[in-house]
Amino acid sequence: MHFRFERLDHCARLLARGRHDASAGGSGAQSPGPRVHSLTSPLSSSSPARALSGLPKGKMTENGMASRGKVLTIDTMNPTVKKVEYAVRGPIVQRAVQLEKELREGAKKPFAEVIKANIGDAHAMGQQPITFFRQVLALCSYPELLNDSTFPEDAKSRARRILQSCGGSSIGAYSASQGIDCVRQDVARYIEQRDGGIPCDPDNIYLTTGASDGIVTMLKLLVCGEGKSRTGVMISIPQYPLYSAALAELGAVQINYYLNEEKCWSLDISELQRALDEARRHCNPRALCIINPGNPTGQVQSRQCIEDVIRFAAKERLLLMADEVYQDNVYADGCKFHSFKKVLFEMGPEFSNNVELASFHSTSKCYMGECGFRGGYMEIINMDAEVKAQLTKLVSVRLCPPVPGQALMDLVVNCPQPGEPSYNNFMKERTATLGVLAEKAKLTEQILNTVPGISCNPVQGAMYSFPRITIPEKAIREAKEKGQAPDMLYCMKLLEETGICLVPGSGFGQKEGTYHFRMTILPATDKLKILLSKVKEFHQKFTQQYS
Amino acid sequence: MHFRFERLDHCARLLARGRHDASAGGSGAQSPGPRVHSLTSPLSSSSPARALSGLPKGKMTENGMASRGKVLTIDTMNPTVKKVEYAVRGPIVQRAVQLEKELREGAKKPFAEVIKANIGDAHAMGQQPITFFRQVLALCSYPELLNDSTFPEDAKSRARRILQSCGGSSIGAYSASQGIDCVRQDVARYIEQRDGGIPCDPDNIYLTTGASDGIVTMLKLLVCGEGKSRTGVMISIPQYPLYSAALAELGAVQINYYLNEEKCWSLDISELQRALDEARRHCNPRALCIINPGNPTGQVQSRQCIEDVIRFAAKERLLLMADEVYQDNVYADGCKFHSFKKVLFEMGPEFSNNVELASFHSTSKCYMGECGFRGGYMEIINMDAEVKAQLTKLVSVRLCPPVPGQALMDLVVNCPQPGEPSYNNFMKERTATLGVLAEKAKLTEQILNTVPGISCNPVQGAMYSFPRITIPEKAIREAKEKGQAPDMLYCMKLLEETGICLVPGSGFGQKEGTYHFRMTILPATDKLKILLSKVKEFHQKFTQQYS
Repeated sequence: MHFRFERLDHCARLLARGRHDASAGGSGAQSPGPRVHSLTSPLSSSSPARALSGLPKGKMTENGMASRGKVLTIDTMNPTVKKVEYAVRGPIVQRAVQLEKELREGAKKPFAEVIKANIGDAHAMGQQPITFFRQVLALCSYPELLNDSTFPEDAKSRARRILQSCGGSSIGAYSASQGIDCVRQDVARYIEQRDGGIPCDPDNIYLTTGASDGIVTMLKLLVCGEGKSRTGVMISIPQYPLYSAALAELGAVQINYYLNEEKCWSLDISELQRALDEARRHCNPRALCIINPGNPTGQVQSRQCIEDVIRFAAKERLLLMADEVYQDNVYADGCKFHSFKKVLFEMGPEFSNNVELASFHSTSKCYMGECGFRGGYMEIINMDAEVKAQLTKLVSVRLCPPVPGQALMDLVVNCPQPGEPSYNNFMKERTATLGVLAEKAKLTEQILNTVPGISCNPVQGAMYSFPRITIPEKAIREAKEKGQAPDMLYCMKLLEETGICLVPGSGFGQKEGTYHFRMTILPATDKLKILLSKVKEFHQKFTQQYS
Repeated sequence: MHFRFERLDHCARLLARGRHDASAGGSGAQSPGPRVHSLTSPLSSSSPARALSGLPKGKMTENGMASRGKVLTIDTMNPTVKKVEYAVRGPIVQRAVQLEKELREGAKKPFAEVIKANIGDAHAMGQQPITFFRQVLALCSYPELLNDSTFPEDAKSRARRILQSCGGSSIGAYSASQGIDCVRQDVARYIEQRDGGIPCDPDNIYLTTGASDGIVTMLKLLVCGEGKSRTGVMISIPQYPLYSAALAELGAVQINYYLNEEKCWSLDISELQRALDEARRHCNPRALCIINPGNPTGQVQSRQCIEDVIRFAAKERLLLMADEVYQDNVYADGCKFHSFKKVLFEMGPEFSNNVELASFHSTSKCYMGECGFRGGYMEIINMDAEVKAQLTKLVSVRLCPPVPGQALMDLVVNCPQPGEPSYNNFMKERTATLGVLAEKAKLTEQILNTVPGISCNPVQGAMYSFPRITIPEKAIREAKEKGQAPDMLYCMKLLEETGICLVPGSGFGQKEGTYHFRMTILPATDKLKILLSKVKEFHQKFTQQYS
């Protein structure tokens, strides 16, 4: 593999160890732990079952009794969990939170505030929620408000319809595990409209706890086998680290295919083929994940590319997973969102009857940015009926996705229509939000590209820029000595000196020897301009310092 | 193992197969699938990597090309997922939903409505939400309402405090992965008050997506090893099937200990010891799960019992998991809820500094019954600091629990206080709800115990009765011929003849040769009386029919 992830694990362990040693000393001083055994367990040391269990014995104390060690330690915990890494909320964000606290407590820093451009969290960056959505959610939460004449009729009718589909007319009741019937119907109708009338069966819709939940659930269904038969899943590099984290946790094989930075982060089929052929020597590749519009790349795939990917998946017998949570976030001229579902069906029955596809959407992105509600859905196409029954059973164990998130998902797919009282205001808010995002996408690209040593592809869609940064050899050596990825060193210094929190490219994966960071375009325009000029200044200083 | 679970899997497969065969025929007729390979994949059959991958070849067609099989089939999916069973939402509930649909469409049935007493879904059974909670949720959803003079000031101040802790003052922002700071602080203060001042560190609180999420996360941390070193987890029989489902999915070893039905479903330490000693011959037992008040048993553990369990866990080096979601649902005279945390700390530092404990709570039960919001928390005690860092990392991958559920959890632990404007009404609603539940608990026990062949322990707490039913030999034989658990046959017939939906005891586990069902006590009192008299009538008829 010619890329590496930042060793987040390592930092977390070191941090934790400091605390651990302190607390262990504290409790040891006051605990007469060893006496527990002698008081209560005459059998335990002589039990033959115990001898077989392979438990660590613990330290022996002066009187020969075993002192208690923890049942659950870093050495005895689930090893797949240890392998999980998630840079978007990694050590750099922990440090940012700490800096915020220090500032609040009056510490002197070279900056007055921490700007978190590490995560696609629109509302936290000041984006306003859509009024209509929040009105309906308030009505669903407290139905007394249905008598309040200040709420528009269309909001009330949406709320009534959702409440009628809830047990006891309450969003406090469990829904069906697959999601509320009427919401799934609305999702299906929305997909049909989006895709020019291609039919969508509500039975193929599963509401989820954000898109992450759906993605993890689909991956979970797929994973099996050991050794060379172990399930492999193809993911883009750079990727959104949910994928690598979920694959690590499931013990599946991560198959990296590299997006082409020189061609605006586009996907080359020849690279898919290379990655697949290599992977087949050591695992059983079964699925291909696509993020379109791209996270962290901001690339929007062409219709031709999607067709080629589908053809590739068909030829190579791969289940397709299309992460389409940024489907409304397309800014660049000439770019358009094409859903995998639509292209699949337009390619004719030899594809539309055969290729297995799961696609994902969410309430967290686009113009809504309602991350906290954890709403989402997935649509599954051509899934084997027995597997589908297993999927339905699996999701039933967690009872249901959060109902407020389901209600919100319903509003996204069943938004105000022309002629309804809330239509004009809804469109105004929606258009304004998307318009500002498009401006900021352009601004980000333009300003970053004025910096020598930073080169930035156009932000065609989504909410991120993933510029390449040149890091001087001396800085790379220093990072390596510290056991840090060079772009982690860069981002940490940026944070300490400017208060700007970005995520190093190593958290998303990148070609060996290249360095990047991901920044969101979400800060308010004024703040974004300040942020970009600070990044510019920092980069120049950093380059000078290490040259 | 001397008990069995209902083969839910089998039914689901048969159902699915029927649909599958039909659709496969349909698509085959119109799909020129085999041509895909010849058109697009000159390499695929000759690729040496392909030959190594161990993929099934698919059927050969007349022209010698491989026709496409599904990538994901029942035979190639994750085998641990297949083992998952969750009776509370199993085939009997699917049939109940179908019957409801048939009724709506005008079908003639021996009943006018389906009564779902299969799941602890209070609002669906008509329980009203707490007004104060819903007012605050509406204010958080649509902060414009903070200007509405009809909302009480204490509701507004709660909403303002929650919003101030949210990014951008919006519940649409992601929270910290561990949960909103101020909510965790409130939870900690609540636990301290509940437990008579024993300190609680907000850092040990993790907000969760319902209690299920916390339980699965803790189990996930624990599982490791293979063969005889594989992690084993002790769960009560009968149990809440989330536990068996999660253990199956994680591939952990389920260690059953049987509750003592003759002694009101109490827990015997000698039975824990028996189960543990047996299990140590084939796995590595590492955790002990307790549900108190009990689901499905309705039993409330005595302080003495909890102390004995803690002593046992200490002696045997087991991590304790205390599922305490019914902590406010205690009805019987002389019964009281004792938290494991409190008892642990009252036992002195040799226990409180050593025994690892995770305890779970939720917004879904007690007097709130707000299942749809998926709110919950867990408190962890004595967790190794490195493991805790891993836990925090693990939960960060899913970003955050749903924020409306976090807000609701905050209201539960920070409810109106004496002197606040909403206090009286809140207390009235809370007391009324718990009072009615106590009445229904008694009513259920009394009426069921009048039926010859049904014997029912007191419903001391929680929301369920788990009566034992005598099933005639002839019915047992008939069930076995059908490959069904006898109590599944019983519950299915009950559903078809009366419209009452209960869950067979086999879904929770029970001693070999005993049969039970679980019913909730949640239907409104009038409806509950009808339900109980119908069960009585059915049982008599069923017994007669099979004698």
